[in-house]
Amino acid sequence: MNIGVLGTGIVGDTIGTKLVQLGHNVKMGSRTATNEKAAAWVKKNGSRSSQGTFADAASFGEIVMNCTHGVASLEALKLAGAINFKNKILVDIANALDFSMGMPPLLSVCNTDSLGEQIQRAFPDAKVVKTLNTMNCILMVNPQLVANGDHDIFISGNDAGAKTKVTEIVRDWFGWKSIIDLGDITTARTTEMLLPIWVALMGIYKSPNFNFKIIR
Amino acid sequence: MNIGVLGTGIVGDTIGTKLVQLGHNVKMGSRTATNEKAAAWVKKNGSRSSQGTFADAASFGEIVMNCTHGVASLEALKLAGAINFKNKILVDIANALDFSMGMPPLLSVCNTDSLGEQIQRAFPDAKVVKTLNTMNCILMVNPQLVANGDHDIFISGNDAGAKTKVTEIVRDWFGWKSIIDLGDITTARTTEMLLPIWVALMGIYKSPNFNFKIIR
Repeated sequence: MNIGVLGTGIVGDTIGTKLVQLGHNVKMGSRTATNEKAAAWVKKNGSRSSQGTFADAASFGEIVMNCTHGVASLEALKLAGAINFKNKILVDIANALDFSMGMPPLLSVCNTDSLGEQIQRAFPDAKVVKTLNTMNCILMVNPQLVANGDHDIFISGNDAGAKTKVTEIVRDWFGWKSIIDLGDITTARTTEMLLPIWVALMGIYKSPNFNFKIIR
Repeated sequence: MNIGVLGTGIVGDTIGTKLVQLGHNVKMGSRTATNEKAAAWVKKNGSRSSQGTFADAASFGEIVMNCTHGVASLEALKLAGAINFKNKILVDIANALDFSMGMPPLLSVCNTDSLGEQIQRAFPDAKVVKTLNTMNCILMVNPQLVANGDHDIFISGNDAGAKTKVTEIVRDWFGWKSIIDLGDITTARTTEMLLPIWVALMGIYKSPNFNFKIIR
C-alpha cells in the first residue's frame, strides 16, 4: 500500500520505518521537498521510501498518517491540501502539547475540543481516526516491548469503516492486542487528555516504556 | 481517629461507612446540620457516626475528606472555614465535573489548573492531598473487587508527611497495593484529566468496576 507520513520527527521516522519494513511504499512529507531529516530517513530505508512536501506525501498516500507536532498539525495539514485527504483515512497520532511555557507542557486544546476534532472539522471529507497518541513511538509499532503487549490502545473516529481499517493496521501490522473503540471523534478529547499524566509518569520512571491498561 | 467527611452523596456515604467500619469516629458534614441524607447515614452507621454542618465536620476531624461535588467544593470548604483546616490533612477526592451542558460532562477546571490546586491556594494552611479521584467510590474502599486489586491509585500533594499518612490510609485501611506518587499538588491536574476517559469507558462498559493501571 502507498502511505503518506507527514512529519520528519521521531514519530514520523519510527512509523515510516515500520511501514517500509512491512513492505509498504512510504513517502515522508515535510514543509520542503528536500528536508534533511527526511533525506536521511530515505537513505536509511531504501527504495520503498521517498520524500516530498506535505502535499506530495498526502497525495501519494492511500492512507495518510499525521505525525507532525500537534501544535503545528493544522497548519501542516492545510499545506498538504484538503483535496489530498478527500475520502481518505487520515490517522491522527499527534498531541497538541505546547512546551512554550516550559515543563510540564500544556495542551493547546482540551476539554471542550481536541486536535482530532479540529482536524476533522478542517477536513470534513477526510476520515479522521485518532489513535496511537497515548504511548511512546517505539511502543506504537512494538507494543510487545512492554509486558508482552498486555496493555491498551484507544481509537476514536466518526467513520466505522475507517476505524475498522485502522484497527486492522494497529492489530495486524503493529501487534496491538487490546484496542478500545471509544466512539466518535469527540472522544479524541479523552485520549489527548491522558498526555499530562503520561508526561508526569515519564518524569518519574525516566523511561517512556510504559502504557495504560484498563483493568476490569 | 476522628475524621470529618464533607459531603452526603454516594462518595461521602461510602468513605464514611468504611471509616466507621474500621473503628474511626466520623462526622458527616453538609450545608445544614440536619441534612436528611446525613441523618440516614448516621442511623445506618451507629454510635461512631454523627452529623453536622461542614464547619462541625471539619472542626471534628483530625483529618478531613472532601467528598463534595467538585464544582461546589470550594464553596463548601469556605463554609467549613479555613481555621478548621489549619495544619490538617485535607484529602481531596472530588472532581470538577460540570454536567450542566449535558453528557459527557466537562471539567470546570483543567490543563493550567486543577481543583486540588484551587483548594490548596484557598487554604494555604491545609495540607491538601489529592487522591482516590480516579475510580468509582465502591472501588476506592474495596480495590480488590477488580482483578484482586492489581491496579493503580495516584497521589499528589505538597506536604511529604501528609502524603505518607494518606498513603498509609489508602494502603492499610482501604487495601491499595500500588500507589503512585506523582509529585506536588500541581500534578492533581493530571489525574483530574483522567475523568473524561473514565466517563467514556463507563459508558462503554456500562459498569464502574474498572480502573487504570500503568504497565511497565
